[in-house]
Amino acid sequence: MKIALDAMGGDYAPEATIHGAVWAARDFDIQVELIGQPQVIEAELKKHDTSGLSLSMAPASQVVRMDEDPAAAVKSKPDSSMVVGAQMLKRGEVDAFVTAGHTGGGLAAALMHIGRIPGIKRPALCTAYPVSSEAGLCIVLDIGANPDCRPDYLYQYALMGSVYSEATLGVSNPRVAVLSNGEEAGKGNRLVKDALPLLNEGPFNFIGNVEGTDVPAGLADVVVTDGFTGNVFLKTSEGVAKLLMGAIKSGIADGSLPVKLGALLARPALKSAATKLDYREFGGATLLGVDGIVVIAHGRSRGYAVRNAVRLSVRCVRGDVLGTIKSRLKTARTQAED
Amino acid sequence: MKIALDAMGGDYAPEATIHGAVWAARDFDIQVELIGQPQVIEAELKKHDTSGLSLSMAPASQVVRMDEDPAAAVKSKPDSSMVVGAQMLKRGEVDAFVTAGHTGGGLAAALMHIGRIPGIKRPALCTAYPVSSEAGLCIVLDIGANPDCRPDYLYQYALMGSVYSEATLGVSNPRVAVLSNGEEAGKGNRLVKDALPLLNEGPFNFIGNVEGTDVPAGLADVVVTDGFTGNVFLKTSEGVAKLLMGAIKSGIADGSLPVKLGALLARPALKSAATKLDYREFGGATLLGVDGIVVIAHGRSRGYAVRNAVRLSVRCVRGDVLGTIKSRLKTARTQAED
Repeated sequence: MKIALDAMGGDYAPEATIHGAVWAARDFDIQVELIGQPQVIEAELKKHDTSGLSLSMAPASQVVRMDEDPAAAVKSKPDSSMVVGAQMLKRGEVDAFVTAGHTGGGLAAALMHIGRIPGIKRPALCTAYPVSSEAGLCIVLDIGANPDCRPDYLYQYALMGSVYSEATLGVSNPRVAVLSNGEEAGKGNRLVKDALPLLNEGPFNFIGNVEGTDVPAGLADVVVTDGFTGNVFLKTSEGVAKLLMGAIKSGIADGSLPVKLGALLARPALKSAATKLDYREFGGATLLGVDGIVVIAHGRSRGYAVRNAVRLSVRCVRGDVLGTIKSRLKTARTQAED
Repeated sequence: MKIALDAMGGDYAPEATIHGAVWAARDFDIQVELIGQPQVIEAELKKHDTSGLSLSMAPASQVVRMDEDPAAAVKSKPDSSMVVGAQMLKRGEVDAFVTAGHTGGGLAAALMHIGRIPGIKRPALCTAYPVSSEAGLCIVLDIGANPDCRPDYLYQYALMGSVYSEATLGVSNPRVAVLSNGEEAGKGNRLVKDALPLLNEGPFNFIGNVEGTDVPAGLADVVVTDGFTGNVFLKTSEGVAKLLMGAIKSGIADGSLPVKLGALLARPALKSAATKLDYREFGGATLLGVDGIVVIAHGRSRGYAVRNAVRLSVRCVRGDVLGTIKSRLKTARTQAED
């Protein structure tokens, strides 16, 4: 298996990307194709022991920076690592493309140079989200590809998210829910209410509405929502986790000597809770609905997060996410024509 | 000042409501009018020392239960504590009405029996939300009154939230923001994009978009959003806090003896963090935009939360939230006519 990695994308590229690539090549027995400026990549590779690893390089002279207008940058930089990676995937030279560059840039490059799966109306950004139930993770989409959504998009998100949950997390017959302002069937905005009849008939295990509290509680395996609400949902989760861990920290800092000592002893328990919402563990968001496996890692990814983003792309390929989505889409269409 | 309290509303009524009423009458030097079944209220009052307190009673024979369809129950039960309380407020017999009953019921009773402030298109549910900045709290609305929203509603939410922040939290010239899927001005769904020009011209200090992470970080004093997103935002915050505190607890339970001992010592710091997101401190949500002060407390309110809900209504009355909203609305309309 050959995974293309945008060596130039992300806040800590190329150190983090090359470190992650080396790590992934060693751990997952795959070939990693590094895309970017050869001299930069080579200099970085020298810092690592790469003997026995399958690492290759594809030159790309330009870089899409984090502060650029993403769509414009992707258009004006045809030899950027982001565009070159997307084109390699399109031509079938690699099995997946991973970038920690600008999310909007990744989206634009994928849409322009890979295109949608035939029949898919809008691709969606899809992420794993930590939950307290046994499963430990739930799939949420769309987390920001399309802020404005239609009922038929939600239907396709449910189909794709269900396949993704099976393939990457091994959940069988995942429970699919729609995020709403109440659990009852009557609750919802216009979009949710209009989508319910469609969702009830889809080729997936639809269980109805869930509230914001229900998602961290693990009441669903796949949660579909419009990209606006999904983005607010995800960022709010990050913000609240930061707020709480910050409040604990300052409570310790302001505390008595016994409190400080106690915190030191209890550190492992606090640390394990903090990693519970840590994006580095999940490896990034997958852009579902484009005709190839594209993983967009967090811009702040360090080596470990890049390694996990590559792992995620490997799981998508091994689980045949793309092929399964295509075949389920056919079933769905046949159903619709009945 | 006379505050009407729905003695029969909430999961723990009448114990919690009467307890909260006694507590509030003692702490805030006000009269609390208890609405409900007299024999139930009297039996409950006997458990408390009420000497010197200003507590009165208004009979209401019916109760809107938590499991009923709220709008239907409010219609079919004209002598319910919820309807009687709303009507007393409408007639000017009390200064505010507080209920811990069904949120939908409170909304329906207020709309049917009190009505909107002239010129207000849709009332909004408004809550204080804990943030890590110095202010400690931020105002968020709408958290669920109207799942489908229009740009002109958001404009009025901004105006009302701004007044509310000044009156109840004492923030001067509060920074008003709109919740979005990115901080940049280009980000947003159709609603947010269409609302921006309006928000930029309102008689309040509009600072632009904020993301989900920005709200707990305290980047705004007032955050406006549609009732669907606001509800997801609030419930997600609750869910993530529960997830994290649960993860810490189970980390402690599964931990070594030193971890357990440490947690015991560090308990004050953990507890103070846990109360940070505790609804009991804030006292409930205010329904802004109806022509009277209506506070809807959490259904799970115990005595302390009911006391704080009454305190919130007192602050709204003392801060003249209603009068200020009305006069600002006139300014806004004059501006619009220029």
